[in-house]
Amino acid sequence: MVFYMAEPLTISLDAMGGDHGPEVVLAGANISLSRHPEMRFRIYGDSSQIETELQKFPKLIAQSVVCHTDVAVPMDAKPSQALRSGRRVSSMWQAIEAVKNGEASAAISAGNTGALMAMSRFCLKMLPDINMDRPAIAAFWPTVTSECIVMDVGANVGADTTQLVDFALMGSAMARSLYGVERPKVGLLNIGEEEVKGLDEIKEAHVILRDSSFPMDYIGFVEGHKIGHDIANVVVCEGFSGNIALKTAEGTAKQVGEYVRSAINSSLISKIGALIARGAFQVLKEKMDPRNLNGGIFLGLNGIVIKSHGGMDAYGFANAIDVGYDMAKAEVVTLIKHDLELFHHENKKA
Amino acid sequence: MVFYMAEPLTISLDAMGGDHGPEVVLAGANISLSRHPEMRFRIYGDSSQIETELQKFPKLIAQSVVCHTDVAVPMDAKPSQALRSGRRVSSMWQAIEAVKNGEASAAISAGNTGALMAMSRFCLKMLPDINMDRPAIAAFWPTVTSECIVMDVGANVGADTTQLVDFALMGSAMARSLYGVERPKVGLLNIGEEEVKGLDEIKEAHVILRDSSFPMDYIGFVEGHKIGHDIANVVVCEGFSGNIALKTAEGTAKQVGEYVRSAINSSLISKIGALIARGAFQVLKEKMDPRNLNGGIFLGLNGIVIKSHGGMDAYGFANAIDVGYDMAKAEVVTLIKHDLELFHHENKKA
Repeated sequence: MVFYMAEPLTISLDAMGGDHGPEVVLAGANISLSRHPEMRFRIYGDSSQIETELQKFPKLIAQSVVCHTDVAVPMDAKPSQALRSGRRVSSMWQAIEAVKNGEASAAISAGNTGALMAMSRFCLKMLPDINMDRPAIAAFWPTVTSECIVMDVGANVGADTTQLVDFALMGSAMARSLYGVERPKVGLLNIGEEEVKGLDEIKEAHVILRDSSFPMDYIGFVEGHKIGHDIANVVVCEGFSGNIALKTAEGTAKQVGEYVRSAINSSLISKIGALIARGAFQVLKEKMDPRNLNGGIFLGLNGIVIKSHGGMDAYGFANAIDVGYDMAKAEVVTLIKHDLELFHHENKKA
Repeated sequence: MVFYMAEPLTISLDAMGGDHGPEVVLAGANISLSRHPEMRFRIYGDSSQIETELQKFPKLIAQSVVCHTDVAVPMDAKPSQALRSGRRVSSMWQAIEAVKNGEASAAISAGNTGALMAMSRFCLKMLPDINMDRPAIAAFWPTVTSECIVMDVGANVGADTTQLVDFALMGSAMARSLYGVERPKVGLLNIGEEEVKGLDEIKEAHVILRDSSFPMDYIGFVEGHKIGHDIANVVVCEGFSGNIALKTAEGTAKQVGEYVRSAINSSLISKIGALIARGAFQVLKEKMDPRNLNGGIFLGLNGIVIKSHGGMDAYGFANAIDVGYDMAKAEVVTLIKHDLELFHHENKKA
């Protein structure tokens, strides 16, 4: 049984994941702790490395339990390989298992995505009323004035109709509990707004969502250029196109950032102007900082697992911890479970 | 027979397409004429409307033949409907037919995309050695220092392996003739760079392209965030994800533009700085102007058809005309035909 309400919340950390291992993970935990001083940690990995880093953060020491593991999952291991050699014994597995055992409310890892997904699924199991055999990955997407949830961004390539509907249900539950919106605006990513366009799965999911009584405000199809323009709280897509969309947006934002830099550096007078307006550029830089929205959320599991980007620094990792913390605090999994049960029960009756 | 080499080149225009009809089409033609003073036009549509607009552009009058048509294809007509009521008699059809008859080297329309596609296919026919029953749409994608070709951006949803390979061949021919690159860098859009990831069609196309002797430098999988970062001349994708990528990039660029504007307007001092650096912002604005890369190229047809965005102004429409002009001048269709024949011939032998 998982105790989502355990107070104060404990977060389990895979200290060995990511490009930088314990150094970034512990510094990240320390940043997150400064924002949520009551938070507690269970930290899994090589205890000598962890203890060395931990010495830098006296407050973190007081709130943490270090659990030694001998095995770290390599960043380039195949999921099946990782599962074979890392099951039960690796820092990644044990961080997830802490969630299963109720010792932690969410697990955070910057490690190998495929391995984290395989282990999460194997250890925590999928929720009973779900049509997927692996979790979907939800991401926060910055919008002009706020943010929205986009899912799946890469786990379920070629999701079918019922999976798309489940994504919509899960995304909606997430938006309700995280954003406090009673009826979140939910849309389906498609290549046109007309009902005749797109893939059959999407058109079928559209009909189900349109005619449903789900606690959401279903807004129909959303095209790629509108994701960031505040028309939806949740944009649902199959994993392939969701991943393409997410990465294309990241690449484009970076590209425009380079245009801005190069335009400003093109003359002395532009540089002077930019120096005067540096406050504005600082705001812009913060707004576009990819670290702010770090943290891919695995949805559909019996528990919370958050994937931090492998290359993140401590600030970015802290944000992934915060996502796990917020998800646990808002009891998102309980709500998802409830919604899925209700829907699949109603569906069976019909 | 189509005379791609006809000198001076004649371009056929559907004057009735787009949100603004003849007003924008003729003003656009006039801009394009100022860049290529030898160009000639065949202009199809309501002759009284066309003649009125044409009076504004004395040089254009001298280079144009106006061909009256009674029917204009509505922007919201279904392709089958448009074909039924507009075949032979509409401005859109006749502009395409001019290419078929050798009276023009490329047709440009800002009209209904589905109708333009159906009519192009019906009138010009697909090239003999091609595995598609409708043209692919190629788009120019701005990169940090230059541009690349991305295709298909929306015509062939769920393209199969052989279609993806044909896209690669056509895109490569286009890059060779337009950019003068001997062996264009060609990549396949995917959700990871590893060979194990992605859809089966993409993985199979990857193997064919990797092992082929095509006149291209095949670079493997390209992820969404790298499209705009100058790693490929051609990025090949299936129509659904290509459209999602293109529109997401457009939306993100616009979104970042709004961040820049709002950051600058946030204080008086920022406004002053921006005023001083206004030259830089002008450069930035031009760099990000979507009109510069207007023009979706229909590939796989026995002739050149360019789709201008329906909402474009004269400057944007002129750029779509220029794309048609450049494609005709570079004899892209002849090269594509040659490459496809060669490949499919070799393939049969093997």
